Formats: sequence, C-alpha cells, structure tokens
Amino acid sequence: MANSKYEYVKKFEMEDKLPACNWIVVRIDGHKFHRFSDDHDFDKPNDENALNLMNSCAVSMVEQFSDIVFAYGVSDEYSFIWKETSQFYDRRASKILSLSVSYFTSMYAIKWKDFFPHKDLKDPPCFDGRIVLYPRVKIVRDYLSWRQVDCHINNQYNTCFWMLVKSGKSKKDAQELLKGTLAKDKNELLFRQFGINYDKLPDIFKKGSCVYKDTVEETLKPDDGGNTVKRQRRRVIVGHFNIIEDRFWNEHPNILKED
Amino acid sequence: MANSKYEYVKKFEMEDKLPACNWIVVRIDGHKFHRFSDDHDFDKPNDENALNLMNSCAVSMVEQFSDIVFAYGVSDEYSFIWKETSQFYDRRASKILSLSVSYFTSMYAIKWKDFFPHKDLKDPPCFDGRIVLYPRVKIVRDYLSWRQVDCHINNQYNTCFWMLVKSGKSKKDAQELLKGTLAKDKNELLFRQFGINYDKLPDIFKKGSCVYKDTVEETLKPDDGGNTVKRQRRRVIVGHFNIIEDRFWNEHPNILKED
Amino acid sequence: MANSKYEYVKKFEMEDKLPACNWIVVRIDGHKFHRFSDDHDFDKPNDENALNLMNSCAVSMVEQFSDIVFAYGVSDEYSFIWKETSQFYDRRASKILSLSVSYFTSMYAIKWKDFFPHKDLKDPPCFDGRIVLYPRVKIVRDYLSWRQVDCHINNQYNTCFWMLVKSGKSKKDAQELLKGTLAKDKNELLFRQFGINYDKLPDIFKKGSCVYKDTVEETLKPDDGGNTVKRQRRRVIVGHFNIIEDRFWNEHPNILKED
Amino acid sequence: MANSKYEYVKKFEMEDKLPACNWIVVRIDGHKFHRFSDDHDFDKPNDENALNLMNSCAVSMVEQFSDIVFAYGVSDEYSFIWKETSQFYDRRASKILSLSVSYFTSMYAIKWKDFFPHKDLKDPPCFDGRIVLYPRVKIVRDYLSWRQVDCHINNQYNTCFWMLVKSGKSKKDAQELLKGTLAKDKNELLFRQFGINYDKLPDIFKKGSCVYKDTVEETLKPDDGGNTVKRQRRRVIVGHFNIIEDRFWNEHPNILKED
Repeated sequence: MANSKYEYVKKFEMEDKLPACNWIVVRIDGHKFHRFSDDHDFDKPNDENALNLMNSCAVSMVEQFSDIVFAYGVSDEYSFIWKETSQFYDRRASKILSLSVSYFTSMYAIKWKDFFPHKDLKDPPCFDGRIVLYPRVKIVRDYLSWRQVDCHINNQYNTCFWMLVKSGKSKKDAQELLKGTLAKDKNELLFRQFGINYDKLPDIFKKGSCVYKDTVEETLKPDDGGNTVKRQRRRVIVGHFNIIEDRFWNEHPNILKED
Repeated sequence: MANSKYEYVKKFEMEDKLPACNWIVVRIDGHKFHRFSDDHDFDKPNDENALNLMNSCAVSMVEQFSDIVFAYGVSDEYSFIWKETSQFYDRRASKILSLSVSYFTSMYAIKWKDFFPHKDLKDPPCFDGRIVLYPRVKIVRDYLSWRQVDCHINNQYNTCFWMLVKSGKSKKDAQELLKGTLAKDKNELLFRQFGINYDKLPDIFKKGSCVYKDTVEETLKPDDGGNTVKRQRRRVIVGHFNIIEDRFWNEHPNILKED
Repeated sequence: MANSKYEYVKKFEMEDKLPACNWIVVRIDGHKFHRFSDDHDFDKPNDENALNLMNSCAVSMVEQFSDIVFAYGVSDEYSFIWKETSQFYDRRASKILSLSVSYFTSMYAIKWKDFFPHKDLKDPPCFDGRIVLYPRVKIVRDYLSWRQVDCHINNQYNTCFWMLVKSGKSKKDAQELLKGTLAKDKNELLFRQFGINYDKLPDIFKKGSCVYKDTVEETLKPDDGGNTVKRQRRRVIVGHFNIIEDRFWNEHPNILKED
Repeated sequence: MANSKYEYVKKFEMEDKLPACNWIVVRIDGHKFHRFSDDHDFDKPNDENALNLMNSCAVSMVEQFSDIVFAYGVSDEYSFIWKETSQFYDRRASKILSLSVSYFTSMYAIKWKDFFPHKDLKDPPCFDGRIVLYPRVKIVRDYLSWRQVDCHINNQYNTCFWMLVKSGKSKKDAQELLKGTLAKDKNELLFRQFGINYDKLPDIFKKGSCVYKDTVEETLKPDDGGNTVKRQRRRVIVGHFNIIEDRFWNEHPNILKED
C-alpha cells in the first residue's frame, strides 16, 4: 500500500510564518470560565487560589518556552510576550499558538489539586488563544497598559458589585446602582458603605500579575565553612507591579529591548 | 484611569476567518511524545491504554463540538473534520485551533487516571495543532486515506522493529535489518521469526480509530411492563474501519456530504 | 560593496500562494471612471466604443494568459476566471493580481486610439483589482450570475435615468422619480414616455459581455483547387449570452469543469 | 430579477488589511523586459531615455498617491515606500498593489511617445508588483541599501559585459571572461581595455534614481517691480544620491520618520 497517491493533500497546508521583527503576543483566555468559576465555587470578586493557579501555570510557561520574555495575567486571562527575534518553530503561528494553549491547559489541569486540594475538577478547564503582533516596544507597552487598566476598571467594578450583592442587594439592583458611576464614586461607595479602602486591597487584585525571568545574585555558604560564594542565577519572578508607568521598565531594561 | 488611549492596540488584531465552503481539518499531534511515552513506560509498538485514552478524548471532542463530523486517530495524532458549513466562532482560525487543542489536552490530563490508574503523570501532556482546509469531499477522503496508509506503514514497521528489539537485537541492528524491506518482507519476517500473522493483529493497531456520531435505534422497555418503544438516538461511535475503500462511506453517506 | 549584509530584508517577503483546487477570480474595476467617462464624453447610459474597448482588452487577456477560461465584463468592470488547477507563477496572489491589472491597463491605454480615434486620452486609465477564490463550479456560476443580474439592474436604472435627464429633468428629479420603482415600472416608463422597448435594446447593454476560447471548425479551400480541408482551431469568442440559465453552460461544458 | 440569492458569493472575499505601523513597500518590476528592451532597441547597458521614462512615471506616482514618501528605481524596477501610517483604502493590500501597478503601467504607456518619439510601442509594457512590510525605519533603509548595492553590482557587470560584446566578443565569451572577477578587476578591465573610468560614469547608471517630495523655497518677483516674496513649495525631486550612507537621510529627516 503506497502512500504517494494521497500525498498531494499536503499541498493544502498553508504557510503561516509570522513576519520578522515583531513582538509576538499570545493571549490566552478562559473559555466559559463564568460557568467554570461558578461550578467550582470561586470566591468573588477574586479567588486568590484561582489567581495563584493561573500564575503558577504562567511560571511553567516562562520556564518551558525560553523565548517568552514577559507574561501578564488578570482574572482568567494571560498574555505572553515572545521576543521579537524568536525563531521558535520558524515563527509558525499555529505551532506557537497551539503549543502555548496546550501547555497552559495541561498545567492548569495538573496543578489544580495543588491549589484546590479539597475540590475535584468538575469540568475540563479550557482556554482559547490568539496571536497579535506588535512591531515596536512602545506598542507592546501600550498593550500591557491596556490590559492593566482593564484589570483596574474591572476589579473596582467587581469589588463594588459583589460587596453590594453580599450585603443583600440583588444582582440586578447592584448593576443599576453602579451604572454610570465614576472611579471616585466607586471608591467612596466602598469606603462609606463597607469601610473598605480600595487602595489597601491586595495588589494581585488591583494590578494583576507579572511573570518574567530575572537575574538574581545568590550568596552560597559552603557546608565546609569555607568562604561564601556569590553567583548569578536566572529566576522566574512573580510580582504585582505598575507596568503602566516607566519605573518598572527602567528598572528592567532587558525585558523589552529592540534588537 | 481611562483605557481609551491604549485601545488602539486592538487594531493590530488581524482577521483570520477561514474561507467558506471548505472542510476544516484540525490535526492534533503529541508534542515530544517519544519522550512522554518513554517516561510513562508505554507498551511498544502500541500501548492499548494510551490509544484508548486518545480515543476517549476524541469522543469528548465530538460530543463537545457539534460541528465535528468525523475524527480519525493513530498513535499520538488525531484529525478532526469540521463540516464545511461550520459557523463556529464565525470560522475564526485561532478560535477553532486553540479551543480544539485546549479541550483535547484538558481531557487527556483529566482522563489519564481512568486509563493509567497506577501511573502518575510525570510530564504535562502537550499537543500541537494545525488547520488545513479541503474544498472537496474527495480530497477530505484522500486526506483520511493518507493518514490511514501512514498508520499501516508505521505500524508494520514498528511491529517488526520492536519484535526484533525484544528478541535481543540492538535498536541499530533492527533498523539496519529493516532498511529497504517491502511490506511482504516484513510480514514474512513476522511470521517466520516470531509466528505472528500480521493480518490477525488488532484492527486498532492496523487501521487506527474512527470516531463519529451515528443514529442508532434503541428499544426501550418501560418499567411498568407496557409496550416496548423504539426511538432514534445520536450516539458517538468508535470503530476501526477501512476508510480508504468506499464501503464505509457508502454505508455512512451523511458524514461527508457536500452542501 | 557586498550585498550580503542587507539581504536579510528579503526575509520579510511573505508567501502568498493561493490554495489549490479553487477557481481564481480576478475582478478588475475602473478607478474613478465616473470622472474618466465625463472627461472623455462617453455616451450615456452606455458608450458602445468604451464597451468594445473593454472587450478588446479582455480578448487580449484571454490570449495572453492561457489559464483564463472565461471572462465577463460589464461597464468598467471585468472578471477573469482562472482555472482551478492553474499553476501560473505557482499561484502567487500578487503575481496573478498585478500582472492581470497591469496587462489590462496597458492594453486599454494602447488600444484607446483604435476605439476613440478622434479623442486624446486626458487622464491615465487606471484599474484596481482583487482576487476572490471559489472552491466549486456551482459558486463560480453563482458569482457570474451575481454580476449579470447586477448588469441588468444597473442598465435598466441607468437607461431610465439618462432618458429622463436627456428629456429635460434635472439629475436630482430623475433620481427622485425612480426611487422605489420596480423593474416593470421602469420598463413601462421607458415604453410610455420614450417609446423604448427595453427588451429590444442591444444585448451588450442588457447582458454584458462574455469572452472565452472556443474550438471552431474551419473549412479551408486550397489555392490549387484541391479538396477542401476541415480543421479545428481555438478562437477567442466575444458574445452577450445569458449566463444565469443552464443553456450556455450545457453548450460549453469544457469551460468550467472540475478536475 | 433579484440579486439577493447570489449575493452570498461576496462572503468569499477575504479581508487583506495590512497591519498598522509598518512601512509599505510596493516593488514594481518590468515583466519580460529583456524581450521588451530588445524589441524596442534599448541602448546597452543603460538606455537613458528608458530610465528617464521610468523616473517620469515614478514622479507621477508620487504626485498621485500622497502617502508615498520615497521611491527608488533602477533598471526596469521601482520601489515605492508608503508611509507607515497610511490609511489609503484602509490599508487593503489588493487596492494598494493593484492601483500602484495599474497607474504606473498606464503612465508608462501614455508617456512612451514623450521619451521615444520615433519609436512605436510594439508590445504592451507590463509590470508585476509585490508588497513587503517593514516595521522599522532602519529596515526600510536596509531595504533601499539592498536595492542600491544591487544597482551598483549589476551596472558594473553590465558595463563590462556590453563593452566586451561591442568590442567583438561573443556574449558567451564575455560571460566567461567576467566569471569570478571582483569589483576592482572589472574597474581595471574597463580602464585598461576601454579607457573608461567607472567612477566617472553618470550617477543615474551607478546609483539609480530617487524620487521624493521636498520643500523648496521660491523667490517670486512681482510684475509690478515691488518687493520680492519668498514662499515654501512642495516639489517632487528626482536625484541620484547615495542612499546607503547617512548623509542623504540626515539632510532629509522628514522622509522616513517613525510616528
């Protein structure tokens, strides 16, 4: 049985190389996570375990794919920035997209038990993904700012919404109450009605999470009591920084660097 | 904090709608499964549990995505045929690809324990995927024939190779021995040296696996002893058919039908 | 001066092969031809010389590019159907599009004098173009029907509009008068007010123009008075047929034939 | 006759918007110009009239399409750089490509008589075209350097080749003689054998042609003998500059400027 007569079907595979000199952003998004979070009784407005699970998967991604230079996550969404010069699978879009989504999903399913030891997975966690290309560092930063502002806006709204609901309002009434309110109205509502100072809420809720590799200096003390030794080591960092302002980027000039 | 100044970054998202009137094939492939199968001690040349796990994930896919009309799997690879008129997510390639790969991966990780109750997952299972479009039923069938011939060729080779290795040959010697042999040489080798009649090996090894929805007639006997009732039900079938010849397709004319 | 250090810029050229087994339609459209037809005093609603010039360019196209199997033109627009198996420049979209548009434009400028011997070209004739792919003969035919119905609708409207304008109405009044009228209203208006039987107007106006290669039988009479000889010859035909109904296609089964 | 039942064919038109923030290079190339230049007896190695005709068409392009910021031509090829922020036809690739190629071709056919008053056009001039995107000014400059180095290499070779042929060598012998020679060998050959100092040849041959808009200051002297007036005017410039070195670009900082 020869296969040659059928091999022409391979000609239908289309090339999908991403153009050079563009930062590759893979954004992963929970599929039907509204229902998923209900089914698994996630805390509202933020479930810290769920966020830590997302972050842990992102750390695995950064460790697994060496061309990812930065990741930013909020809620059930994570953006992975691949360096503009990446030659991973010859920059084939379908390889980069499918492997990113598959690896992240796999990690999420496997690590579930570590973060929810007392809950079984009831539905398969599932993520969709997309690739967006950015030709300049400035635009990558604006992309990240866009996501972080979104995080802030959503979190402020959700914090108000769920406080109202937990205090006895119906979901519909809570929605009505918040319609048209400005940021400072929401902060005031939280403070007056619930004694919550929004600025004091955990950064992981307000700012989302950043994951990246950094060089840290370690001091090693030999067992034999000899001289301590310093060495440089690459480590994956998880933090909750303001990535809209310049400060973080000035302090980490190597993360986004045009070639 | 307004987001409007950053929203221009959305303009960089490119449309990726797949053209109408084309069958959409999503082929999923185990990533680094050579190592994965070693790490988990898969039987050689075929691990029946591993194949059944793949098939079980494919069944879930067919149940989950109603536009998948047929799936064909062999080894660590599975092809899913989406009907040519599918409007799933407006035919956006990245949605179709990422959700397919993510759902399959999720299922694989979750169902692992059902098929390997005594083995822990040591590495995260990971799959890559690609989309290929076929504008005619005839070419979809040729695509499936291509995969099934491949299954046959690989299985015959692997069966010989592993019998030789298990009988004491080094992998290199086994390779040398098989170089340039024809199908009938391999069959003879199996028969003479190992008493194996290749044609008698299980179809799941020789023909791979087909998954599709079929209408079956059920006979229901009411608890109250009343008259039995017949009803039609859609059920997902797993089988190991010859999909190169016309017979299967003549018997299932609705699976691949041009609009 | 070596060029090697700059050659990396070639890597930015993206592949643009059109998928196999699809009919390639190149539709060319006059750019700013409203003004162009005013500047050159084209007859309204139809300028027969201008249409014949378009047809003559289409004939040159069909002679020049052997993979074009059919062309259909109306007003300042022409569609060229390339056979589904064409391997012209490896099916690269930019080659097919740019050469089609360039050759057509060149012909238009060169042949102008043949059709308008007493008018100089005042503006450069310019055409834009696009490629659309159709995976089935049926859809190619629907595409052509779409263009021919459009021809009919526009021609009927324009005939009424220009008769009204020529009879003294302002363009605005003519527009108002025709707003919301049905086909039969327009036919009646033409007949009652201007004594025009729409059905008797020339087919080139009502049906547009078809260009294709056909095999014709020639009878050759030798100069020496010997026996006449019959031979088959491929000739480019220009006609004004109904291409919506089956008849034309039944009579020319070789033009659109799936492989 | 309603068109609605056929309008679905429009769904097959694919979006082809070019990504934002990329310089758009449209490179136009003479199609079968080897033969075209033979048929019209172009001077070898360079026909000054033919080059001036190409340049004149490029000037028309720059005047016609206001988003073209720079054009560079050599032999029968011209590259047009569209500014990175161009919104011409919503950045649709097929519109930009087809209109560029069509307008250039039209101009070439129309202006022919101005540059070759004693020669009739024997074949239709035809150009193919392609679009390449460059995300950074630096790479646009490298692209232009690539073309100019190519101009230099080809011109030096062709000058030697045609001097040898004109002096009586066969084309094959000329080719053989030049095989493997370095730049300085060719210069020496020209000087020793033909008394030609390559560096003294016209810049239009050695460096190709640049076309761009520049602001020039005009001094107007009123007819009534009043005071002269200075005013700024945008004018299209044709020059033969070194565009590899920084000097030209430092003197014209506005041509390629990232937004």
